[in-house]
Amino acid sequence: MKRIKIIIEYDGSRYHGFQAQQNAHTIQEEIEQSIYKLTRDKVSIMAAGRTDAGVHALGQVATFDTDSSIPGSKWQFALNSFLPDDIQVLKSEQVSPHFNPRFDAISKLYRYVIYRQKSGHVFYRNYSLYDDESLDIDAMKRACNVLQGTHNFSSFCASGSSVKTFERTITFCRLFEQGPCLIMEIEANGFLYNMVRIIMGTLREVGRGKYPPQYLEDIIAAQNRSLAGPTIPPQGLYLVRVDYPQSSRDGS
Amino acid sequence: MKRIKIIIEYDGSRYHGFQAQQNAHTIQEEIEQSIYKLTRDKVSIMAAGRTDAGVHALGQVATFDTDSSIPGSKWQFALNSFLPDDIQVLKSEQVSPHFNPRFDAISKLYRYVIYRQKSGHVFYRNYSLYDDESLDIDAMKRACNVLQGTHNFSSFCASGSSVKTFERTITFCRLFEQGPCLIMEIEANGFLYNMVRIIMGTLREVGRGKYPPQYLEDIIAAQNRSLAGPTIPPQGLYLVRVDYPQSSRDGS
Repeated sequence: MKRIKIIIEYDGSRYHGFQAQQNAHTIQEEIEQSIYKLTRDKVSIMAAGRTDAGVHALGQVATFDTDSSIPGSKWQFALNSFLPDDIQVLKSEQVSPHFNPRFDAISKLYRYVIYRQKSGHVFYRNYSLYDDESLDIDAMKRACNVLQGTHNFSSFCASGSSVKTFERTITFCRLFEQGPCLIMEIEANGFLYNMVRIIMGTLREVGRGKYPPQYLEDIIAAQNRSLAGPTIPPQGLYLVRVDYPQSSRDGS
Repeated sequence: MKRIKIIIEYDGSRYHGFQAQQNAHTIQEEIEQSIYKLTRDKVSIMAAGRTDAGVHALGQVATFDTDSSIPGSKWQFALNSFLPDDIQVLKSEQVSPHFNPRFDAISKLYRYVIYRQKSGHVFYRNYSLYDDESLDIDAMKRACNVLQGTHNFSSFCASGSSVKTFERTITFCRLFEQGPCLIMEIEANGFLYNMVRIIMGTLREVGRGKYPPQYLEDIIAAQNRSLAGPTIPPQGLYLVRVDYPQSSRDGS
């Protein structure tokens, strides 16, 4: 039995999220079906992050175990020949059978895209949030700085979550403009449920002048979801990259 | 009775082209339905160019006649409130009742996009042709130059076309790289059926080294469709802009 690690990009528009579920079209299901078509084995894949409906990925990581003789690096091409054209494997390799894509991850990078121009947004409607109102970008950048570091982020976690601890370390949170888009990139050692979308929703409220950047310190300190901004829609969100310690990259 | 001119952008992915037809979902039908919802009048709109299934527009132009009291400039917002989110009116105005969006056009600008990078193409699959092979861009640029000017373009016209003359003037045809994309822009006083897609298909053959740039002179001279390259797929094609003489812009 070998463990195969794949790096996947997908357009989440047509899917009810990553994770397999009854009576819903999911990315996990598409990948497992492609593996089945190749090997006739019903495997379960495990992913680094379970993205929600409409959320995209540029570098999702998943693993599965197989007895197939297909070499690790060839799974990329084998799977792509069966996958629909909105899911693509960018890389495949054999890894240690102890490698766990979710628990071994040391950091993840997410991106959120707001499209700020009237013309052209028909092409970005599934890939960004459209918002052409005036926003105080400098204030939003200062708010990003407040978020960086190790904090209890329970104010930025959707209710109903059953995690053990709300403490996370945001390595960086930055905001920049690129053409007609306003982009936030945020890297942390882990994210709570809906954390990126609530952070972006809160940053937008800062941009609108609803509260000053420093108020994010109070929101963090309150540990109360109701103080933060709304959960912003999913279609602007991308899982960009998942990082692992050097050692876990070794195959075996 | 007033004539209203609208400039429209649309993502053509979901549609069987612009022109209304039985048992097919078209952009014309969506716009006419939106006008009907606003006015309860069944109008026929006329467009500058009838784009094919899968082809997009950044600046399609269309007109319709109405007795409605909605001011010309307000039609933009009125229609957008009923249109699906992949069709958007960018501008509306009242024009002369003699203005004809198709026959008054003095030039049209089209763009064709080839996506040349493996990663990211899941997001461009409906908006470009994916082709990551090596292409001789300089040779393709020289071929663009050969196409410029006034020629009989019957070698670049799909069969079955019933036009009176195959002579057209290409004002410019240029090729440039932008990020992961190779883009052709072509402006002419008119285009034959599938002309842009056949030109791009022919330029790609030049890029592959199948024939030298100067061979396009022979293709033009032969007036024989079978000598030019294949009709390249529709999803990379955009109607960018339609231009009119200054005088026809006056409302009345």
